[in-house]
Amino acid sequence: MMTYQAPYKDMQLLVAQAYQQQGLDALESLDGFDPELANAVMEEASKFATGVLAPLNAVGDVQGCRFQDGKVITPDGWQDAYQQFAESGWIGLALPEKFGGQGLPKYIAQPVNEMWLSANLAFVMFQALAQGGSEILLNFASESIQQRYLPKIVSGEWTVAMALTEPNAGSDLGALNTKAIPQQDGTYKIKGQKIYITYGDHDLTGNIAHLVLARTPGAPAGSRGISLFIVPKYRVSIDGELGEFNDVHCTGIEHKMGLHGSPTCSISYGDQDDCVGELVGERNQGLMAMFVLMNEARLSCGLQGVALGELGYQRALEYAQERTQGTNSQGGKVAIVEHADVKRMLLDMRSETFALRALGYQIAAQIDATEAADDSSKNNQSKKDRVALLTPIFKAFATERANVMAGQVIQVFGGMGFVEETGVAQIMRDARITTIYEGTTGIQARDLLLRKVRGDQGKALTELLAEITQLVRPFESDEAFKAAAKETIKTVDTVTSLLTTHLLKLDANSVSLHGVSVPFLEAMGILCCTWQLFNVLAYQRTQACTDESYWQNLTAMTKFYAAYRLPSAIAALKVVENAGQGLSEYEC
Amino acid sequence: MMTYQAPYKDMQLLVAQAYQQQGLDALESLDGFDPELANAVMEEASKFATGVLAPLNAVGDVQGCRFQDGKVITPDGWQDAYQQFAESGWIGLALPEKFGGQGLPKYIAQPVNEMWLSANLAFVMFQALAQGGSEILLNFASESIQQRYLPKIVSGEWTVAMALTEPNAGSDLGALNTKAIPQQDGTYKIKGQKIYITYGDHDLTGNIAHLVLARTPGAPAGSRGISLFIVPKYRVSIDGELGEFNDVHCTGIEHKMGLHGSPTCSISYGDQDDCVGELVGERNQGLMAMFVLMNEARLSCGLQGVALGELGYQRALEYAQERTQGTNSQGGKVAIVEHADVKRMLLDMRSETFALRALGYQIAAQIDATEAADDSSKNNQSKKDRVALLTPIFKAFATERANVMAGQVIQVFGGMGFVEETGVAQIMRDARITTIYEGTTGIQARDLLLRKVRGDQGKALTELLAEITQLVRPFESDEAFKAAAKETIKTVDTVTSLLTTHLLKLDANSVSLHGVSVPFLEAMGILCCTWQLFNVLAYQRTQACTDESYWQNLTAMTKFYAAYRLPSAIAALKVVENAGQGLSEYEC
Repeated sequence: MMTYQAPYKDMQLLVAQAYQQQGLDALESLDGFDPELANAVMEEASKFATGVLAPLNAVGDVQGCRFQDGKVITPDGWQDAYQQFAESGWIGLALPEKFGGQGLPKYIAQPVNEMWLSANLAFVMFQALAQGGSEILLNFASESIQQRYLPKIVSGEWTVAMALTEPNAGSDLGALNTKAIPQQDGTYKIKGQKIYITYGDHDLTGNIAHLVLARTPGAPAGSRGISLFIVPKYRVSIDGELGEFNDVHCTGIEHKMGLHGSPTCSISYGDQDDCVGELVGERNQGLMAMFVLMNEARLSCGLQGVALGELGYQRALEYAQERTQGTNSQGGKVAIVEHADVKRMLLDMRSETFALRALGYQIAAQIDATEAADDSSKNNQSKKDRVALLTPIFKAFATERANVMAGQVIQVFGGMGFVEETGVAQIMRDARITTIYEGTTGIQARDLLLRKVRGDQGKALTELLAEITQLVRPFESDEAFKAAAKETIKTVDTVTSLLTTHLLKLDANSVSLHGVSVPFLEAMGILCCTWQLFNVLAYQRTQACTDESYWQNLTAMTKFYAAYRLPSAIAALKVVENAGQGLSEYEC
Repeated sequence: MMTYQAPYKDMQLLVAQAYQQQGLDALESLDGFDPELANAVMEEASKFATGVLAPLNAVGDVQGCRFQDGKVITPDGWQDAYQQFAESGWIGLALPEKFGGQGLPKYIAQPVNEMWLSANLAFVMFQALAQGGSEILLNFASESIQQRYLPKIVSGEWTVAMALTEPNAGSDLGALNTKAIPQQDGTYKIKGQKIYITYGDHDLTGNIAHLVLARTPGAPAGSRGISLFIVPKYRVSIDGELGEFNDVHCTGIEHKMGLHGSPTCSISYGDQDDCVGELVGERNQGLMAMFVLMNEARLSCGLQGVALGELGYQRALEYAQERTQGTNSQGGKVAIVEHADVKRMLLDMRSETFALRALGYQIAAQIDATEAADDSSKNNQSKKDRVALLTPIFKAFATERANVMAGQVIQVFGGMGFVEETGVAQIMRDARITTIYEGTTGIQARDLLLRKVRGDQGKALTELLAEITQLVRPFESDEAFKAAAKETIKTVDTVTSLLTTHLLKLDANSVSLHGVSVPFLEAMGILCCTWQLFNVLAYQRTQACTDESYWQNLTAMTKFYAAYRLPSAIAALKVVENAGQGLSEYEC
């Protein structure tokens, strides 16, 4: 069995394209951070992903984490790999140089992160936590907290854990009950139980910085009364010295369907009333900090979808090329990749993973552009709105599709795929959580519809649709792409028309509206993938062609995707049009 | 957590409907085997399913089977449950009274089997093997073999194992290599390695009758040179006495993603050149016997899809009614079933499982009708063709959908669903093999397209489409169903038109044709479900209404299904229309 190999050619193409199309070449602040640097970084990362992380993926799955005597023990090899990962500087790749990071833009971090996620998703979960946690501290924490925590996090000496969920507060964080009682010295005593905390405890580092959502006394009910605290496992003195145990107890880890190598912890804070936290940001503004984290986490999670799709595709392709079943007309053995139905599944995975990767890289580059540009310009706001519009689509659609693709991988393997030793069952089991954590698909669809589409009366969506039309229109006069282009524009027109008749019109609380939020998101996901495929084709026409067969395949992928997948977008929009039928009347 | 409860109301309705609509009430041979008897049998079965089998489902998953010292050990409780199952006469439910069975028609066995499959799929796999194996023996074996084996199989004293697959012969059985050398006494010495043999070895019974596919010397290559043998684990003398060990060695069991309680064995026949088998049927006619088994097995496998869908739906509904997240306008807690997107998922599962159950019961009743009727009549042949047409659709579509639904169940549970203790992850892991064994979805789609549609130039399909149109047409003038009926007929018309432009026209070996076989099957699956829902509505109008809210929900389900699912059939047919685009050009 081949080890995961980074899909270089695709990555380099899409990185260069995003860099150029988002105008990063014109930004002074990104001077030197060009695609050439990106390629060098990707090459290093690829060696690490293939050489160190990928071989541990099955180990983590089979062994899992153990919980013994109140302690979490990670799988064999985890500690070594973590040490190497941190020492190589990968944790701080996109974090500020001021705190020891390498300050690389997101558009370079994106392909690198994709490699980690393909190679060993369970292992590398701490990376997104370090990134997201750091961004919260950079945006909201006091200078003192930043100085004491960020260098340790960026270097990997400490990890970050996000403690949000409680047994009765999942998607509805407003229901949480953990308490934070102010002390004389300005700190808070934290008390409460949290669950589902990724890397909430482990044996990789000497300390763990928990970011904990809790309520101060008298705080408003619901989500407006939530504050954010930093709560280390071992206390950190005002001059940064590591102190005594902070009454942060791991009470157990979950026995999960997948991601066995990533410890999912239940944590009890302040069992002995001796757990001290510091406020991050303003009181009752905890949810605002969470939104920063959530955006970061959703992009990372969407990228997990891409990464698992890629991993699965590589496995399925390799197997389909080796495995023979049936004979050809000359009586020779036929590799199953030659069977049209198997090829269909492979091309489905290949084209959608490629398109979603393109989308993810463009979003990352666009964030780089908005962060570097003048914040107040109208143009920049519209770019930010675009990112905000695409984020829930990318998160939910990429992860939903990763689940479907993981199923297809097993289907290509046949009975072999159902046998655990083959390793592809793990992809499916690991993928299953990605449509749930960091906001379920339903939550993403709600965010898309209520905040991103209805929030600005459809402005950002309309701009996106106009851009897609403008891009695709010229392909209508191209014989090879005529049908694909026409169907794409028909889909765009259907969305435009549903915007006034349904999406903006239906009552904000109606069963009709929310009962079609996921189908609407699905349609947008497919449309965005089609858009990205056409966008690559358009970009290619501006470049010197160096590899004809590669471009021929990209052409075939676009035609295939429009022919085989775009009809599902039309179908999902038809469901939007049928909003509510039968659903309201049915009594569960 | 509630234990699985048989969905009585649905089952009774659909059993009575199938009985009447397939004209079983007019058959003398089924005198006494009426829905009243069916209800009594279902009641007994339901107690056994809920009381004995369901509690062992998680036990089997967690413990799994073990392979120790060359022996297979089933999970705790398996032996007791098997004993009770056999003693209660469930194994021979639909097998001839002549051999100790109860001789019940299939239309009654169908809901009973569904209960077993929902309650504990892994455990009850031996049941379909006994049923299918017996049908092979009844159709092809000599009187002597029947007399010696059938009473033991029907009583459950021995189990049946089907030994088809070899490492290089999976979907392509023609590639198998196991040898059968004729002996002086008319028996054969069997030698070869088989894999993926369900209940190929176990500790439940004193003997196991293996039905083994093998080649005799000089047999033609490929699938025309395959013969079928009965090979007991312990020899059976000519007067039925149990003899010595027959050199049938279990060499290991698979470590699978799901179905942990069902041993999947590798078996070596004739390691010591001392494995004796008897020919079943004619030499080189083994595949014909397999077709009998396959039809039986495919129906059973489709029913597994229904059963897992039902199990998952029950779990998801119960959880959604108990779990609260968010508040209503009065500040009260809201059960997640009230969230429109969750309700959408539940209704999706509910309506499709119900429709597939209806389809499965109709097929079973239709088989009863064809078996009882005069074999040579034209009308009877057309009924047989209908069964043959629907079988691959039912098998593939029901199992594909069970996989999707199992994913939805986890989605409803959120993070809890990813935790193994909740038990719903098992449904997803168990379901994963159902689209693979007994012929993959790709194989079913190929059978549908090449044999069932092109084999008779679209005759059986055209008859089905005409029947659907005739049934649905009157609903067009019914305000409540106007839209649903119109879309259904539009779908029928699209299939009709594609029949001439694509399905019958494309080259039989073309990538274009085979690259849309699965989308075509998917479209037919959705269309058949819509058909069944309308059929129930039509049937209801001929009955006295005793439960208004139940019927109101069935009405809502039909509208919902047509609004939310039928568009996917149209989309899949659009893919058929786009046959081949991009697929042929792409080079893997």
